Amino acid sequence: MTTSPALANTREELNGLLASARRDGRRVGFVPTMGALHEGHASLMREAARHADVVVVSIFVNPMQFAPTEDLDRYPRTLPDDLELCATEGVAVVFAPAVAEMYAGGFSHESVRDGVTVHPGRLATILDGASRPGHFDGVLTVVAKLFGLVRPDVAVFGQKDYQQLALIRAMVRDLCLPVEIVGAETVREADGLAMSSRNRYLDPAQRAAATVLNRALRAAQERAAYGVPAARWAAMSVLKAEPEIELDYLALTGVDLGEPPEHGEGRILVAARLGSTRLIDNMRIHLTTPAGTPSGGSTTEEGSSRCCAR
Amino acid sequence: MTTSPALANTREELNGLLASARRDGRRVGFVPTMGALHEGHASLMREAARHADVVVVSIFVNPMQFAPTEDLDRYPRTLPDDLELCATEGVAVVFAPAVAEMYAGGFSHESVRDGVTVHPGRLATILDGASRPGHFDGVLTVVAKLFGLVRPDVAVFGQKDYQQLALIRAMVRDLCLPVEIVGAETVREADGLAMSSRNRYLDPAQRAAATVLNRALRAAQERAAYGVPAARWAAMSVLKAEPEIELDYLALTGVDLGEPPEHGEGRILVAARLGSTRLIDNMRIHLTTPAGTPSGGSTTEEGSSRCCAR
Repeated sequence: MTTSPALANTREELNGLLASARRDGRRVGFVPTMGALHEGHASLMREAARHADVVVVSIFVNPMQFAPTEDLDRYPRTLPDDLELCATEGVAVVFAPAVAEMYAGGFSHESVRDGVTVHPGRLATILDGASRPGHFDGVLTVVAKLFGLVRPDVAVFGQKDYQQLALIRAMVRDLCLPVEIVGAETVREADGLAMSSRNRYLDPAQRAAATVLNRALRAAQERAAYGVPAARWAAMSVLKAEPEIELDYLALTGVDLGEPPEHGEGRILVAARLGSTRLIDNMRIHLTTPAGTPSGGSTTEEGSSRCCAR
Repeated sequence: MTTSPALANTREELNGLLASARRDGRRVGFVPTMGALHEGHASLMREAARHADVVVVSIFVNPMQFAPTEDLDRYPRTLPDDLELCATEGVAVVFAPAVAEMYAGGFSHESVRDGVTVHPGRLATILDGASRPGHFDGVLTVVAKLFGLVRPDVAVFGQKDYQQLALIRAMVRDLCLPVEIVGAETVREADGLAMSSRNRYLDPAQRAAATVLNRALRAAQERAAYGVPAARWAAMSVLKAEPEIELDYLALTGVDLGEPPEHGEGRILVAARLGSTRLIDNMRIHLTTPAGTPSGGSTTEEGSSRCCAR
């Protein structure tokens, strides 16, 4: 049996719905989303429920994180289905504000940048930030706003958006925001494709080709015992064999998105376009230096954290 | 009879001291300061007490809001006297963190800008922001941090730092911070000089000359019934008669620091140096259009909100 979540469209409605939980000191868990919810989001809600008494989900397609050339208008909006999924997962409150509720006077990139925003710093200049200038300003600014409105004790974000998760952790640390951040494992389709709201843009041929991202990352994992260049080469070989994709970046980094370590846990990240759809994926990778390789090799270009294709 | 405030140097100590107030739902009022407290700060504490059950004062000389060329090192530090003043005002908790408590790994402008900061937008590019580039990035970033640590229901700032107050209101609005902002009237010495921690830098001749700021603003107020150009001219005449000061700006604006209205409340603001000490002041000004003056006159250079001296 499922109970429908309470729906708040305004901050006043949200405050009303959360008043008793706040008064009673119940822990509030929060999952910010752009809607078009899928099993990946459901797993974030279950993770939030493990850390909190009351789960709040926001559904807001945030215009500030889309460049004027990007897919804001065609981004999928599926509120009835989203509410049903939230009901199944026992979500207490769904906050689905209009744009004017989040951006007083309506949204324009110019008016928002005239006002006060969150500046994401250096970590937002690489990887997705290099491909999507201003994207992480938009993400951090709207997440800060949502944190201010929901005032959660804990918030859950997917590792699928690994750089976003790293930046949100950095924001919480650098601005001393009173919220605990939990990163949740990526949920995948049976063939390994990371779940994403944007997967529904893919036509059948693109959908088949999209598994190349997961296959490339796994190929790198399998070669990690042979060192960073070998791991990267393995991933590139898989990616190059798929003509449907246009690679944006493949990067092998430390867990903090800096230089990869010679030994220990790192991260391998990929972004590519299939037609007009841009997909991203990433995995942990356990790095070792192969016997006979001199140490310090990560200062060569092959071993650096920079993208090897753009 | 006065009770000494509890002193917290770390965020853990602060959380411990505020735990019961938060649990019991008592309202927390907050006055962020850089110490060197005077009667102006005391009035902010009394204002906070009118809006809250528990008053917290922070004392932190924030390096991020000082340019490398500014007076960070010589800024007065008077903690024992500050604690005594807080005791007299019935402050419950003083939060006096070390730099490394507020900036993990210690402070440098470079490392902070690599991380996540608050970007103040267009309002920080005029007046004090034009004279002190980066100053308001530092103010808003540290105030956001302090709000995250103290989690006040209400925070009180002086109108003496009028542009700062406007930017903090903008931050609270644009980032949806869950805190009410109260602006408190400027407290003045008997001769009209606005109280400021920096007044103690002044030698006797400079101290005597410093009253020119207050006198200039009052001259503008007295001429406001004759229109914006007349009010500004009156203030400039007073300022020009004082050779000890080097004027930074004199600006006549709307209450939002935009263009001054033809009728109704505006603001007149001044900044000047006396030797190496930079002082600011401002007052409300009630504007009227004099009989016989055509309307729309504020588009002339004389009537614009721009500084008439820099």
